[in-house]
Amino acid sequence: MSSYERIGSEVVWTGKMITVGVERFRYVDGKQATREKVWHPGAVAILPIDSETVWLTRQPREVAGLTRSLEIPAGKLDVEGEAPLQAAQRELAEEIGMQAARWQELKAFYTSAGFSDERITCYLAQELTPAPDVHSDEDERIEIVPWPLTELDAAIGECEDAKSLIALLWLARQLASGQL
Amino acid sequence: MSSYERIGSEVVWTGKMITVGVERFRYVDGKQATREKVWHPGAVAILPIDSETVWLTRQPREVAGLTRSLEIPAGKLDVEGEAPLQAAQRELAEEIGMQAARWQELKAFYTSAGFSDERITCYLAQELTPAPDVHSDEDERIEIVPWPLTELDAAIGECEDAKSLIALLWLARQLASGQL
Repeated sequence: MSSYERIGSEVVWTGKMITVGVERFRYVDGKQATREKVWHPGAVAILPIDSETVWLTRQPREVAGLTRSLEIPAGKLDVEGEAPLQAAQRELAEEIGMQAARWQELKAFYTSAGFSDERITCYLAQELTPAPDVHSDEDERIEIVPWPLTELDAAIGECEDAKSLIALLWLARQLASGQL
Repeated sequence: MSSYERIGSEVVWTGKMITVGVERFRYVDGKQATREKVWHPGAVAILPIDSETVWLTRQPREVAGLTRSLEIPAGKLDVEGEAPLQAAQRELAEEIGMQAARWQELKAFYTSAGFSDERITCYLAQELTPAPDVHSDEDERIEIVPWPLTELDAAIGECEDAKSLIALLWLARQLASGQL
């Protein structure tokens, strides 16, 4: 039996982005387990495409030791009261200076379900036009990378970021089957 | 410029699986940034397939609030001196009671490059046979789920686990193009 209830939760550290602690669970058979946990506000990711291009970014990912990680645009849900789709629209404008007339939720997933509650909702963004009046406080180290759809395999080969791989593999499959 | 050097690293908490802290980086332009970090030992994941089936698991993922998360077999790199491929072979035996004659590394990726160094190496395992003498200390809550390849889209639809989505989307694409 896999159902359980949480019987204890202790925070050991609170940072600006993450909170860390230990939780205790009891299963319906009475056994108990302890889990280390990283609380995360969640995030959105965006797969922005037009007829010939998928719009990617490169940025340093210091904790992973990467200097120019190839990724789709994304951002944390760190604005109070902002819905995920709104956050995705804001991030698309801030990171690559675009707005999209068509939005479709592709998938939501946990990045590391064993130790974190981080959940990313991924959107397809189409019918792109330049975003007006972008007031970005984004990191100036994010580089915009228009990537030809004909070279999608090379992006998948280079990418080491889980959320971006999910989006790019989904895209490759849709393109191959003529559904995009 | 995206290159940087680490100029400080402070551990704030050490658990059994993860270590948490804050690191400071200096970019080549002289600016500095602070990053919250979760150190993780890394992991392996296995996509075990035969001609008709992909072998999945269901298990509780307490910190994500999931009771029966549909995933590919996986495990942490928590045995001293064990290479990733060895770990994958051990986990395949422990979690689904199988061994494989053919192994291929598919992809390695970071699950949450913004705050963690967790890196998962994913393998394709083929030519499966029952593993002899499995001495498993695995969680008895891991359920083995043989999933028909003809129903792969349903698995992708249900799955909420990033590493498993990467493997299943890769598999769907290979099957569609006749490469498996």
